[in-house]
Amino acid sequence: MNKNRKALSILMRTRMRPPSPSSSTSRINHMQFPPLDGVSSSSSQDASASFHTDFERVRESMHSAISMNKTEILDAALDDFSEGYFGLPNEDRRMLLLTLAREYDLNRIQVRELMKQYLGLELPSGDKAVENAHEEEGSFSAFYRIERNLRHSLKPMYEVLFERLNTHPGGLRFLSIMRADILSFLAEENIPSLRALDSYLKEKLITWLSPANLQLHHITWDDSASLLEKIVAYEAVHPISNLLDLKRRLGVGRRCFGYLHPAIPGEPLIFIEVALMKTVAQTIQEVLWDDPPTPESEATCALFYSISSTQPGLSGINLGKFLIKRVIDVVRRDMPGISTFATLSPLPGYMQWLLSKLASVERSGSTFSENLLKPEEESALLEAAEEFATGKNGTEVIRNLLSSTSYEWTKSEKLSLVLKTPLMRLCARYLLQEKKRGKALDSVGNFHLQNGAMIGRINWMADRSEKGLRQSAGLMVNYIYKVDHIEENAQSYFSKGEIQASDEVRAYLEPQEDIQEEMKD
Amino acid sequence: MNKNRKALSILMRTRMRPPSPSSSTSRINHMQFPPLDGVSSSSSQDASASFHTDFERVRESMHSAISMNKTEILDAALDDFSEGYFGLPNEDRRMLLLTLAREYDLNRIQVRELMKQYLGLELPSGDKAVENAHEEEGSFSAFYRIERNLRHSLKPMYEVLFERLNTHPGGLRFLSIMRADILSFLAEENIPSLRALDSYLKEKLITWLSPANLQLHHITWDDSASLLEKIVAYEAVHPISNLLDLKRRLGVGRRCFGYLHPAIPGEPLIFIEVALMKTVAQTIQEVLWDDPPTPESEATCALFYSISSTQPGLSGINLGKFLIKRVIDVVRRDMPGISTFATLSPLPGYMQWLLSKLASVERSGSTFSENLLKPEEESALLEAAEEFATGKNGTEVIRNLLSSTSYEWTKSEKLSLVLKTPLMRLCARYLLQEKKRGKALDSVGNFHLQNGAMIGRINWMADRSEKGLRQSAGLMVNYIYKVDHIEENAQSYFSKGEIQASDEVRAYLEPQEDIQEEMKD
Repeated sequence: MNKNRKALSILMRTRMRPPSPSSSTSRINHMQFPPLDGVSSSSSQDASASFHTDFERVRESMHSAISMNKTEILDAALDDFSEGYFGLPNEDRRMLLLTLAREYDLNRIQVRELMKQYLGLELPSGDKAVENAHEEEGSFSAFYRIERNLRHSLKPMYEVLFERLNTHPGGLRFLSIMRADILSFLAEENIPSLRALDSYLKEKLITWLSPANLQLHHITWDDSASLLEKIVAYEAVHPISNLLDLKRRLGVGRRCFGYLHPAIPGEPLIFIEVALMKTVAQTIQEVLWDDPPTPESEATCALFYSISSTQPGLSGINLGKFLIKRVIDVVRRDMPGISTFATLSPLPGYMQWLLSKLASVERSGSTFSENLLKPEEESALLEAAEEFATGKNGTEVIRNLLSSTSYEWTKSEKLSLVLKTPLMRLCARYLLQEKKRGKALDSVGNFHLQNGAMIGRINWMADRSEKGLRQSAGLMVNYIYKVDHIEENAQSYFSKGEIQASDEVRAYLEPQEDIQEEMKD
Repeated sequence: MNKNRKALSILMRTRMRPPSPSSSTSRINHMQFPPLDGVSSSSSQDASASFHTDFERVRESMHSAISMNKTEILDAALDDFSEGYFGLPNEDRRMLLLTLAREYDLNRIQVRELMKQYLGLELPSGDKAVENAHEEEGSFSAFYRIERNLRHSLKPMYEVLFERLNTHPGGLRFLSIMRADILSFLAEENIPSLRALDSYLKEKLITWLSPANLQLHHITWDDSASLLEKIVAYEAVHPISNLLDLKRRLGVGRRCFGYLHPAIPGEPLIFIEVALMKTVAQTIQEVLWDDPPTPESEATCALFYSISSTQPGLSGINLGKFLIKRVIDVVRRDMPGISTFATLSPLPGYMQWLLSKLASVERSGSTFSENLLKPEEESALLEAAEEFATGKNGTEVIRNLLSSTSYEWTKSEKLSLVLKTPLMRLCARYLLQEKKRGKALDSVGNFHLQNGAMIGRINWMADRSEKGLRQSAGLMVNYIYKVDHIEENAQSYFSKGEIQASDEVRAYLEPQEDIQEEMKD
């Protein structure tokens, strides 16, 4: 017991410090810099004198790291470069990455030359049946040769740097930080060469981080404090409030699994938290604070209540999909009593969507736009809201109520009850019908649907935290992973944008004709 | 003790069976097939009827594995395909791989279309300095876009299969076996499409097997029997004769390290055997049979006496270089008393080179060709060899002696002594001066030199095994890895073909002028 207490207190001391100071410092610094103007900055001329000698030194080491011959003292050059990079202020990093993107891309003269050669070749006639293909082999040789050369000359020179860093100790982590920087620069300004650098690096990272190279690790209280502090630091969905909270999430009735890459030891790239329960939880409060937890032998449901990525530089690389599938396999194997796999998920975009819809209805006047509230909902709302909010109609009242950061409406039972009907109904519409490029508008929804889940249930007052109220008026969703339908669902979502949902969720949208009629008024 | 004995006897039972029956069966079968004629074989028409339904089935599953949409029931298709492939006889495998190479390569129409678009773009003028590059960004967008599309359309369709197999359980191993098959088909007949398939697969494997994805494993007697049996089966340099031999190679004064890939668990892709010694061993006999071994605290030298690859499908992918560097690092860290890193290596090509040299001297007559033997060597040889071999001159006598498979010369002390001088001298010449495309002719020599080693010593009667006598008249070499010169040596070998050697080895070649004078006769 005493030993445990000591471990706790040691962990406590490090808990609040974010891991890996070098990388996170850089990201914090970044926030303090003014927007960059694209040309070498003159906004802090006095300070940049010393930066620019640093810059030149790092640029030099970057050049060595790319251009040195295979077997030269590459390791030292790569170390120099990565150390130098971490020491650079943000504006210099940006310049360096632009230099990399522009001056180490392709030899376009060579590419064009090869293309001309290729276009000069005559395509062998005849069909491609294997039987007579043998005779054609000879005539294809030139194609194979130039295609191969073209593949090589279409590789930007900076690929060498990426490849070398990937095989260098600490290099993969550095690449992930570099990409996080690139993404943050692109968020400020869309620069085509930097965009091309990012897209190339992303493809490389996808290859290197293929699930074959990742290890599934069951994270427990016996893991090192340095690993656990990362779980605390990176938990993005439901922040871990204290050590007891963390210990509970790793204890009886709970599981936490992470994907580790051998080149980034002790730091899961992504991790998922699972609660083993008797029924699919309706609120996050019961998941985070049910005490005592369900005995594991009685559990029939594995609830995924949080999935967090630790690397901003791996944005857009879907490791979560593979992680969920692996975890389902592991849990099914180890706990045959568990037959339901579900999530309790936030709706990060619901309020943003709804408020902007309401605002646009207001702007255009309700006559020509769709009316989001049914007449009976509107009159009930106007009556109940009298003492809380003002507005000339239901749309304005509901918008004022929902956009207030004091969330007064949650404190009135009457008002909550009146709001529940439209908020649940509109949430079903948001989830099932609102699309962006054929995919669900909600990012979490899109994630689970593309992984093959279905929408199981919308839960009222499921997350009463400030974040939960702000994002989704406290609503949460259960996505259900039905093992036998995962592939089928994913496929129909992928190819046709079809969203599977339970009858319960569909029912919210059934009296469609009523809405249609209202809209004609 | 008893437990140990039991483990031994269990291991004994499996020892002689080669691992992974499916793959090795295929390779054995392969040897029994007649050379293929490229068109669908009619040599066994009756038997091939059932094969061809199998063939069609596997071809179908291959097509599914390539063309199915991302999230469909891909795993089943990949399993079907790999199981089906292993069940195919060799001729069908060959046909299948040809189908893959030919019918799943590029869309050349699309490639040409993109090329025409690209060549239609005007290259932005102006220099590439970062300062004014910003204005040019816009004009480069089209280049980035088409280059990206071209990169994708230049990827053969079969890449999808490789990528999918790589992330599929057992798939990487399957790809390695597939490549071994491709290489053996190419050895029979050089088919351009199959060559292109091989070169593409090889590049993919190099990426996936980068050292960042490999784990260094210290192999000990505590490892599983299934892993140890692979060491026994794949030891390619000095076959492991029995279990005591294996146990010694893993015991006190010895180390064995392997590179494992997470996707091929329990089977090192390559492994190296190390002896910890007081001095650099001169003969393999003392390494394999010194008893008792040097106490580890007295060792000053780590001798690499065997390095073996287990995967014929990884041919041409130099994992050994990284393995040696990693092992040097580990040994230096763990055993500060060890300051010398050396090999005791075979000369696999020495006799082949020497015998063909001798034959060509004979054919052309010694007048116009170089004389390989010095006059004093020739006369001593003719005198000593009288009772053993015939020949009208030294060249013919030495060739007859060395090409005899009974190695009579090793049994005569006098003859051995007379042969030693020319064999040592010519060996130094073979190692230092005989090149192929600027690299050392000897494959083992080339391997260590490109890794940054130098030639330290040539050892007489260092390997008296039949293989040692046949390959190199019993000679072996110590290559030395001087930690501070590895990169430098590798670099000068790589760029200029320079071979570093000790004074002792260089001395064999010093009286060059004598030879030159003889040649003028």
